[in-house]
Amino acid sequence: MSLSNIKIVLVEPIYGGNIGSVCRAMANTDIENLVIVGTEKKDIDMKELKSMACHAIDIFDRCIFVKTLNEAVSDCAMVVGTTARGGLYRQHAVVPKEISPVILSVAQTSKVAYVFGRETDGLTNEELTLCTHIVRIPSSESYKSLNLAQAVMICCYELFVTSGTYVLPAEESPLASSGLKERMFSLLRKALLRIGFMDEQKADHMMHGIRRVLNRGVKTINDARIIMGIAQQTLWIADKSDKKVDD
Amino acid sequence: MSLSNIKIVLVEPIYGGNIGSVCRAMANTDIENLVIVGTEKKDIDMKELKSMACHAIDIFDRCIFVKTLNEAVSDCAMVVGTTARGGLYRQHAVVPKEISPVILSVAQTSKVAYVFGRETDGLTNEELTLCTHIVRIPSSESYKSLNLAQAVMICCYELFVTSGTYVLPAEESPLASSGLKERMFSLLRKALLRIGFMDEQKADHMMHGIRRVLNRGVKTINDARIIMGIAQQTLWIADKSDKKVDD
Repeated sequence: MSLSNIKIVLVEPIYGGNIGSVCRAMANTDIENLVIVGTEKKDIDMKELKSMACHAIDIFDRCIFVKTLNEAVSDCAMVVGTTARGGLYRQHAVVPKEISPVILSVAQTSKVAYVFGRETDGLTNEELTLCTHIVRIPSSESYKSLNLAQAVMICCYELFVTSGTYVLPAEESPLASSGLKERMFSLLRKALLRIGFMDEQKADHMMHGIRRVLNRGVKTINDARIIMGIAQQTLWIADKSDKKVDD
Repeated sequence: MSLSNIKIVLVEPIYGGNIGSVCRAMANTDIENLVIVGTEKKDIDMKELKSMACHAIDIFDRCIFVKTLNEAVSDCAMVVGTTARGGLYRQHAVVPKEISPVILSVAQTSKVAYVFGRETDGLTNEELTLCTHIVRIPSSESYKSLNLAQAVMICCYELFVTSGTYVLPAEESPLASSGLKERMFSLLRKALLRIGFMDEQKADHMMHGIRRVLNRGVKTINDARIIMGIAQQTLWIADKSDKKVDD
């Protein structure tokens, strides 16, 4: 699902560092459109901004500056305002996880704005009336208010995860079958008997504990091969030491 | 579920601002224990740190400083390392959403460390061998690496959400029943006929569209009362204007 119809709107942000962090959070989550409302470009501390944006400075370079929130969202079918506070106009808030699939569905055909308020005191009630939806990020009762860029990160992350484009790049070995694991256990049993770790009488009992440990730990074919390699090498060294004794 | 057995471990962090942001992210998500490895307190820019920590400076005040990762995690039953990179020792990574319930379950009885590497190049392979689990935060193919404090925020947020202590503080009015909604529609029909918005012949057809709109929009008892209030007031003003005409 494409994230290209989604824009992040910052209302009167103050700190260049925060704006830079927002750019990086957006780049980390494939969200590309940034709109800044009410703050002028000349008033932004660019040194701070660049140091936090790192390789995401192009998002700021393409950022659009407007005077009012109205201008920023007028082309959007869905306007999602964020708030850390409760109160009369903020009661119908939902969490980012809940709104993300709705946003992505609307963004298939129309533009959506995700709106974040001032570092000092968020969005005004008047600004919230422009929002079709209100979001509240789960946070501690004892410290509710997130840093601006952290709030943007959470919302973008939930969109990115929900969009389902991310696949863990791990190339895991296929899972070990029961048959392979039984061959592993029988090789191990042979080796442990061979080196005198246990005798035939106690072997079943000992193998019970070993099976418990290895059934937890051995998941893939590669895992099983490591244990089988150790068992095989143990048998080889035992044979070799026997021969030496014979010599 | 308690988060008190979980500690955030930062390995050789450089920037005071990032450490401060980490403190705030932790306070926002009820995670209280911070350990800093290899960076000395005297080398941290405290002005930057305080400006980003805001009301979470007490987390830094209680922070423990140690020389090696080994010291930081030696009391932990589970050590979760984070990485943005792939590679031989990083293939078995899981995402924060997947590891969070496991961490919370272990943290019921034992200590767990969530380990974050350097701003410049993360954790070394040697440090990863101390980790029992490896986590990778979903991020863009074109810009994988998150800012340190953003990475901590995502991991803490997922733990906080999974711990299930957060309840949206909205006090929503109970949902409107079908019976209440039918009373609303019939009052509205009466008012719309009364003001000549539609005539009796077309009323069913017009009400069809109105029902569609209001069935989407009217969810709670409070919502229904707002529409019924408007209809009632409309009837009142229509009666009054009739009387004036009569006068």
